[in-house]
Amino acid sequence: MCELLGMSANVPTDICFSFTGFLHRGGGTGPHRDGWGIAFYEEGGYRDFRDPHPSVDSPIARLICDYPIKSHVVISHIRQANVGQVRLANTHPFTREMWGRPWCYAHNGQLEGWESLPLAFYRPIGDTDSEHAFCFLMGELRRRFDAPPQSREVMWGALHELCERLRRLGVFNLLLSDGEYLYTYCSTKLAHITRRAPFGKASLSDAELSVNFVEHTTPNDIVSVIATEPLTDNEDWIRMAPGELLVWKDGEIQARFNATGNFAVTAGFNSTS
Amino acid sequence: MCELLGMSANVPTDICFSFTGFLHRGGGTGPHRDGWGIAFYEEGGYRDFRDPHPSVDSPIARLICDYPIKSHVVISHIRQANVGQVRLANTHPFTREMWGRPWCYAHNGQLEGWESLPLAFYRPIGDTDSEHAFCFLMGELRRRFDAPPQSREVMWGALHELCERLRRLGVFNLLLSDGEYLYTYCSTKLAHITRRAPFGKASLSDAELSVNFVEHTTPNDIVSVIATEPLTDNEDWIRMAPGELLVWKDGEIQARFNATGNFAVTAGFNSTS
Repeated sequence: MCELLGMSANVPTDICFSFTGFLHRGGGTGPHRDGWGIAFYEEGGYRDFRDPHPSVDSPIARLICDYPIKSHVVISHIRQANVGQVRLANTHPFTREMWGRPWCYAHNGQLEGWESLPLAFYRPIGDTDSEHAFCFLMGELRRRFDAPPQSREVMWGALHELCERLRRLGVFNLLLSDGEYLYTYCSTKLAHITRRAPFGKASLSDAELSVNFVEHTTPNDIVSVIATEPLTDNEDWIRMAPGELLVWKDGEIQARFNATGNFAVTAGFNSTS
Repeated sequence: MCELLGMSANVPTDICFSFTGFLHRGGGTGPHRDGWGIAFYEEGGYRDFRDPHPSVDSPIARLICDYPIKSHVVISHIRQANVGQVRLANTHPFTREMWGRPWCYAHNGQLEGWESLPLAFYRPIGDTDSEHAFCFLMGELRRRFDAPPQSREVMWGALHELCERLRRLGVFNLLLSDGEYLYTYCSTKLAHITRRAPFGKASLSDAELSVNFVEHTTPNDIVSVIATEPLTDNEDWIRMAPGELLVWKDGEIQARFNATGNFAVTAGFNSTS
């Protein structure tokens, strides 16, 4: 199995602290030695750094820890290969352009019968179940909506329905973003924490590192971190329920779908903005 | 204007030497301070590193110089902005998936009336003439060929025709690749050199650095470098003619189209392989 890390924030924020703990699982405290990647959205642009080597040994991973890239949305992944060889083409996150936006995707889990998921518009470059499922997901959304739909809830409902379909094929924990929204879908394991004023201290579970967020934030900052397993040992992380889709923007949950298809919009969210 | 750098090789080869000279033009010996990027194809996979800051000051660029990534095909670009702000979304190279392959593109020049180039399948993420032209190019190829055509010459002919159309809108020097072939199209300025046994020494024009290729190669290596301006001052670079398209594979020219549409295939090339 792989591990996922995501971030949504209302101000450009670096992920150095969380990523430092996370990458220790890439061949250090964890067994995920088969590559890693991290994607950043910055001012409407997108870039990712991917390496098919263990993150603990990677000079590129060290650069990411030392060179704070400030972003509203981050998606990261460390891999323990099950389907597909250890090579760059199979290294998450994957990306495709849809509706003039760079969509980014990372998956934790394993699917059965994924080869028969129908594809439209997008084709996999590598040979993993994960990338095939991504191409299926994007192709289905694009087939249903040839432009970004006026009503976001309709698109989110379609996304939740597609995620539920993929969950029926096995384990499908997902991070997905178009740079504005971060979508997190839980099949078996995802946890999240939202940090806001008054900020406190946090210490990593996987490395000897603490941070006092008061020293790195302003009172209006809201930063949420989502990960397969909680990354800190002194904070209360919330575990998502199987079948739950959360829609994040600016560090806060904008909408929530549960396994029965129930939908809730958080107060103050303008559904047509 | 921007500057372009490309490489095609028959063995995985690092581009550290050429890139070291090239990046000095990014705010050092040259005026191209508005970002840079470099893309590598490795074992069917693709990754790029892009930064909207000057390459001479970039810790990511230093990493690329110090961390030899070995590749068959490389495309790099340093930018002096004309159309579109200095930001990540406008930083070359650009990439899109077509036919299950990651296509990569970098452009030097400026186009008139590019806004009316028709788009199909692909939409720009940023707001440059370059990315719009890329989306036009890819969309036109995909519209004509819904799968990789049996006859490569037919696709190359279509690509040359589209490049000629873009050249009529202004200046359009191009590097394009699908990871197997490297396409170089000259509108005003591109030069190339092919290095093979017996290898000699080379010294950079833009930085105090020399290399003795004998120490870094085997007798069967063939490595070609293509750049806006020659990067070394002691070798004979060949300048391309306006309207010329070269198709590179494994470090050698496989086919050549000139401005009048004449087409030549090099001896030994198997046109249907």
